[in-house]
Amino acid sequence: MSGEINHQIRLAARPVGLPKRSDWQFTETPLPEPRDGEVLARVLYLSLDPAMRGWMNEGKSYIAPVGIGEVMRAGAVGKVIASRHPGFAAGEHVSGLFGVQEYAALDAARLFKIDPRLAPLPMFLNTLGMPGMTAYFGLLDVGAPHEGDTVVVSSAAGAVGATVGQIAKIKGCRAVGIAGGAAKCRYLVDELGFDAAIDYKVEDVRKSLRGHCPNGVNVYFDNVGGDMLDIVLTQLARHARIVVCGAISQYNNTVPIKGPSNYLSLLVNRARMEGMVVFDYASRYPHAMSDIAAWIAAGKLKSREDIVEGLENFPEALLKLFSGENFGKLVLKVANG
Amino acid sequence: MSGEINHQIRLAARPVGLPKRSDWQFTETPLPEPRDGEVLARVLYLSLDPAMRGWMNEGKSYIAPVGIGEVMRAGAVGKVIASRHPGFAAGEHVSGLFGVQEYAALDAARLFKIDPRLAPLPMFLNTLGMPGMTAYFGLLDVGAPHEGDTVVVSSAAGAVGATVGQIAKIKGCRAVGIAGGAAKCRYLVDELGFDAAIDYKVEDVRKSLRGHCPNGVNVYFDNVGGDMLDIVLTQLARHARIVVCGAISQYNNTVPIKGPSNYLSLLVNRARMEGMVVFDYASRYPHAMSDIAAWIAAGKLKSREDIVEGLENFPEALLKLFSGENFGKLVLKVANG
Repeated sequence: MSGEINHQIRLAARPVGLPKRSDWQFTETPLPEPRDGEVLARVLYLSLDPAMRGWMNEGKSYIAPVGIGEVMRAGAVGKVIASRHPGFAAGEHVSGLFGVQEYAALDAARLFKIDPRLAPLPMFLNTLGMPGMTAYFGLLDVGAPHEGDTVVVSSAAGAVGATVGQIAKIKGCRAVGIAGGAAKCRYLVDELGFDAAIDYKVEDVRKSLRGHCPNGVNVYFDNVGGDMLDIVLTQLARHARIVVCGAISQYNNTVPIKGPSNYLSLLVNRARMEGMVVFDYASRYPHAMSDIAAWIAAGKLKSREDIVEGLENFPEALLKLFSGENFGKLVLKVANG
Repeated sequence: MSGEINHQIRLAARPVGLPKRSDWQFTETPLPEPRDGEVLARVLYLSLDPAMRGWMNEGKSYIAPVGIGEVMRAGAVGKVIASRHPGFAAGEHVSGLFGVQEYAALDAARLFKIDPRLAPLPMFLNTLGMPGMTAYFGLLDVGAPHEGDTVVVSSAAGAVGATVGQIAKIKGCRAVGIAGGAAKCRYLVDELGFDAAIDYKVEDVRKSLRGHCPNGVNVYFDNVGGDMLDIVLTQLARHARIVVCGAISQYNNTVPIKGPSNYLSLLVNRARMEGMVVFDYASRYPHAMSDIAAWIAAGKLKSREDIVEGLENFPEALLKLFSGENFGKLVLKVANG
C-alpha cells in the first residue's frame, strides 16, 4: 500500500447557486494510516445526494457544514484494506461517510458492515442505504399512512421518492408520484406500480392532483419544497401529514427561500407538516434493511441505480441531481471491488 | 314579545382588506318564532373574534363563509325567552352561534347551557368559551408541552394567548408572550405570571427570543402568522411543535399570504407545525371548562374581558381586533341580562 496515492476532492469555496468546478479543489495525499480502532477502506461507490448541497452551506443545520479545504462529505460503500479494530477484517465490505476520495480511515464505530451476497453494492447506497432508510422512516414514522390513504411524493423517480411510493403500495395505500418528464412518469406507473404519475413539466399539477386524489392527499412526502409544496397544500385531506424531507428546488437558491403561502391549509385541514432527519433512526436501520431486503427478494420493491464512473467526474455528476437528469439513485463508481 | 323588533347586522359585501362600514347592512325584522325543538333567546353579549374575518371571505375553509345578505355569524351568550325544547326553559342562560343581532331562534342541539352563578357572563365568551377551549386544546393536545418546556405565544394579551400562557405556567412550563406595547407586556408578566414578554413594536424579536429562550422554543402557539412565525422558526428547539391556530396578520391581506420562508427549520429541528380547529374538540369542552373553572377559582388563571356596548357599534368594535387596541377578550354588550 505504501507509496499509493489518495485522490481527493475538497470544498474550495462555498458555492453561490449551483456548485461550479472552481468550488472544488483536487488534491493528492499519501494513504492515511488507520489508528487504533480505525479501519482503512478503499472507496468503491460514492453516493451523490441532494443533501450534499446543504452541507456545502455555512450555518446551523442538522449536521455541521463541510469546512473550506475539507474533503467533501459523502456516503460510500468501500472494502476494508486494513483494520485496527477487532470487528472488521480486510476484504470485508462496509458503508460509511468516507468522503469524496479513494481511501479513508474511519472510526469503526461509524461504519456499517454490509454483506455483498445480499445485493449488488450500489444498492447499499440506495434502497438498502440512506435513501431507503429515509423513505422508510419518513413515510412510516412521520407520514404514518393508513391502508387506503393516498400518498403523494415529489421527486418520485429519485432515490427516496421511488422507494416511498413503493412502500406506500406495499402498505395498501394509493401512490401518486410527481416527476419531470414522460419517461420518468411511465417508469413510475409501469415499472414501480404507482397508481398515477404527474409530469410537472407539462401538466397542470393542481388539476392533475385533484383528478388523481379525489378525496384529497393524506400523506405528502415532500422532497422539493417551493411551488410544488404550495400546490399540494391546496389539496390536503383532513388530518393530512406532510413529511418535510427536503427542498431540492430551494437548495441552490441565491434569494431567500420561498415559504409555502398556502400553509394555512394546515389549519383548515387540521393537518401537520413535520421535518425528519434520517440519522435519528440509526438504531432502527437494521430492522428497516431487513424489511426492504425482504420486499426486494419478493419482487415487491425495485431498486434502480444510475451509475457514473470516475472520481474526477464528481463535480459534473453532482449537478445531474439538480437538473433532473438522473434516473434512480445517482452513484459514482470510484473503483472495482 | 310581539311587536318587538330584532335589530340585525348583515354582511353586505365581501370586504377587501379591513371590513368597512359599507360592508355591513343594518336591518330590522320582527322577532323570530321558535319552531319545534328551537329556543328563542335574547342576545346579551356577543363575542368578537379574529376568526370572524375569515368567515367573511369566500372559499373553502373549516366552516362555510357567511353569505352575502346573511346575519353575520357570531358566538354569544343569551337568555332564553321562549323554548320549544323540553331541555330549556325561559330565564336560563345559553351560549351558541346567535349571530350579530338582538334575538335569535336556534336549534336546541346547538346550544350550551351555562350557569351564571359560576362566573360573570362575559367570561363564558372568554376563558370558559371558545378562546378558552382553543387555548386549552391547542396547547395541551396539539402543542403537547412537557414540564420545563418553553412555550411561546403570539397575540399573548389576546383572549386565546393570555390563556395559553397561563395554562403553560400551570403545567410547569416557561411562558414567553409576544405582544404589542409596554402595557400589554407588563400585564402579561406582572398580572398573568408569564416569565417574559416581548414587545414586538420596539424590540428585536429574534434577539429577545434568543435571550428568553436560551434552549430554544419547544412549543410556539401561533395566533398571528406572517413575519413573527418566520422569526420563531429560527429559534426552535429539537422536536418543537408549532400550533397553527390563526394568522391574524394575514386575515385582511389583499395580496397573497406570506408563507414562512424559514419552514425548513422544521426539517433541521425535526419539528412539526400543525393546524387545529376548536370545534373538533366539542365533545371534550365540558372537561376543559371544569379544569379552567377550577383554575380560575384557585386564583391560578385570570380572565380579562374588554367590553364595548351597543349592537350598533359592532363594525368599529370589530376593527379593534386588527389594530391591536383591545386588551383581553373583546366582547360586545347587546343587552342587560
